[in-house]
Amino acid sequence: MLKDRFDALREKSALVHNITNYVTVNDVANIELACGGSPIMADDIDDAPEITAICGGLNINIGTLNKNTIPSMFAAGRKAAELGHPILLDPVGAGASTIRTETAVKLMEELPLTVIRGNSSEIKTLALGSGTTKGVDADIADAVTEENLEEQIGFAKDFAAKAGCLVAITGAIDLVADSETCYVIRNGRPEMGRITGTGCQLSGMMTAFIVANPENKLEAAAAAVAAMGLAGEIGWSRMEEGDGNSTYRNRIIDAIFNMDGETLEKGAKYEIR
Amino acid sequence: MLKDRFDALREKSALVHNITNYVTVNDVANIELACGGSPIMADDIDDAPEITAICGGLNINIGTLNKNTIPSMFAAGRKAAELGHPILLDPVGAGASTIRTETAVKLMEELPLTVIRGNSSEIKTLALGSGTTKGVDADIADAVTEENLEEQIGFAKDFAAKAGCLVAITGAIDLVADSETCYVIRNGRPEMGRITGTGCQLSGMMTAFIVANPENKLEAAAAAVAAMGLAGEIGWSRMEEGDGNSTYRNRIIDAIFNMDGETLEKGAKYEIR
Amino acid sequence: MLKDRFDALREKSALVHNITNYVTVNDVANIELACGGSPIMADDIDDAPEITAICGGLNINIGTLNKNTIPSMFAAGRKAAELGHPILLDPVGAGASTIRTETAVKLMEELPLTVIRGNSSEIKTLALGSGTTKGVDADIADAVTEENLEEQIGFAKDFAAKAGCLVAITGAIDLVADSETCYVIRNGRPEMGRITGTGCQLSGMMTAFIVANPENKLEAAAAAVAAMGLAGEIGWSRMEEGDGNSTYRNRIIDAIFNMDGETLEKGAKYEIR
Repeated sequence: MLKDRFDALREKSALVHNITNYVTVNDVANIELACGGSPIMADDIDDAPEITAICGGLNINIGTLNKNTIPSMFAAGRKAAELGHPILLDPVGAGASTIRTETAVKLMEELPLTVIRGNSSEIKTLALGSGTTKGVDADIADAVTEENLEEQIGFAKDFAAKAGCLVAITGAIDLVADSETCYVIRNGRPEMGRITGTGCQLSGMMTAFIVANPENKLEAAAAAVAAMGLAGEIGWSRMEEGDGNSTYRNRIIDAIFNMDGETLEKGAKYEIR
Repeated sequence: MLKDRFDALREKSALVHNITNYVTVNDVANIELACGGSPIMADDIDDAPEITAICGGLNINIGTLNKNTIPSMFAAGRKAAELGHPILLDPVGAGASTIRTETAVKLMEELPLTVIRGNSSEIKTLALGSGTTKGVDADIADAVTEENLEEQIGFAKDFAAKAGCLVAITGAIDLVADSETCYVIRNGRPEMGRITGTGCQLSGMMTAFIVANPENKLEAAAAAVAAMGLAGEIGWSRMEEGDGNSTYRNRIIDAIFNMDGETLEKGAKYEIR
Repeated sequence: MLKDRFDALREKSALVHNITNYVTVNDVANIELACGGSPIMADDIDDAPEITAICGGLNINIGTLNKNTIPSMFAAGRKAAELGHPILLDPVGAGASTIRTETAVKLMEELPLTVIRGNSSEIKTLALGSGTTKGVDADIADAVTEENLEEQIGFAKDFAAKAGCLVAITGAIDLVADSETCYVIRNGRPEMGRITGTGCQLSGMMTAFIVANPENKLEAAAAAVAAMGLAGEIGWSRMEEGDGNSTYRNRIIDAIFNMDGETLEKGAKYEIR
């Protein structure tokens, strides 16, 4: 039950080390606090491995990667691997530039990732070695739809098998898969795409969910995705005349802050395939 | 008509590459999304030129420039120039330190800028080679006022001619000029100065406006300035007892999110001189 | 009177140079603007000393320190020292990694700090050379409580004497001490810990308070702490059904924006020991 995954997170202290972009980092920190986790940011090579060591999991987001932070991602990743900590990779913009694609592929190859979370274009880039990422947003041609759902579920499971980790492809319909099981989640609102960083926030929160649920990682990842989508719905329902994307951002994080396992279970729209 | 410039932006996808400061970057991204644009941030030398290539325009903001990002500004700028993309320069703090002044001047000299947007002290620094910038805020001695308006319009046109690009000087009264025409815009609220980054936000949004209006760059830049000022007025009208600058920030971005061309045309207070 | 310290800040222009982390930097800038100060951020070695020179005080926060910004902290600190500007050190995460601890200790040893502000674990780390910092949050074992208050006041005064500067230990009960006098402040709400960066914001605001009150630094530091806690109370009282930590963040900054010296004096809960 997704409920149990959120309850576990609320009961525990899930310390997450984030090496993430400076665009959305504040919202990532606040949503991790909102869900019951505890964020730390550290991206210097002399700092990152030690910080990872005192945390429970590592969230690597390449959104504003640079020559100083890339080595830190690998160093922290190796330390996390050594300690058996879960590692999430958010390959922001993979497919949009060579360095993003290559870094994401190399992180995938060299680190024992727990989960990769991205939009459909980013994930296709990692799976196929090339993609059609339109900047940091997914290309519509790659989107998961009701029409291609069967095929996309197969793709997600196959890629999970090949990558040896969980795969979360998020968009209008979200897929969270290991090699055998795929959660198909239909929460969320299209307006979430008009806020910067809802994907980054989800990755941060998902890491906290997995840290708190070491025995149920797939369900934990699915719970994080459903929680984010549901928060998008709850946040939208609280929008007033004149509110826009900046206020919507606050309302989504607020909705996570006020959410509990029961609300999540009741509001989650998912099937297991 | 300013209306047409906003309508064009709402209809198109204007992908903007931002090399900007980490202080206000999140708000820049959200206001670009609010106005109908699409932001990408990338500032590593190995990433920036490729990211620029997939975008429609480049927004260079030197607010927290450093030895890693300065070369990226030039490299991305050269790539944008090569591809004929519009380039905006926001010379944050030019006049406040040698490296800021020199970098801004060099960017102006080496890149075929489309527009320079700054406060009066920053622009004076670029025009005269020296300035009295008080940190990142304009010196009151440099301000555009009703008393010195004629002279300031002349200065803006002359500097536009000399720099070979549009010039936007923003403050209580905003001037947006090419060598022959100057929009004088009187939207906005003084309280906008109590929020960090309204200037940075305007620069990001202006780049999106220009990307969407390649045939009407001057009018597009003026439309962005009027839209920002009008959003400041609309946002302020929605302030409730106890609200302050943090909420005001959200309300301004929200106002852009909800604005359309017609609202802009009706609310814009400008004359063409 | 704390009132006078806030009134002085409202009347003056207190330009603060911040070398701070990219997680909470936007909120730091907005709260400095809210309280009547004026923020500038600059962390490149070629920029920081000059920017410090035009400011009134320097706020050094090691939250996302790296090999580029650490030398800038020292260079700006030396320039500030040379000019007699107040310097605040916020040793974020001291005790959590070697580089954080060593950098904070070295900054403390090499710069004539005006005040060190941190949580109890960070301050213990600096005082004792080792600590039990749990990431960027204080260990509960280090907390100031009614039970150990006498002892903690003694510790704060001793450390202030040893460090040769003011010491502000913030948590459920806040202590602001020099070697002889300790303000014990009981404002604030536990929910403030669910927002990222309330400590960073306080450090930024405290620097502005001290810049505006050169003759009353201890009282100015105490006024900043009381103002932050009171803003947490006022902000919380304005929370509506469904609001969470993201909105709470805005409401706290808003409360500072609307606060005046009289409100502070009336709402501050403190004793001098």
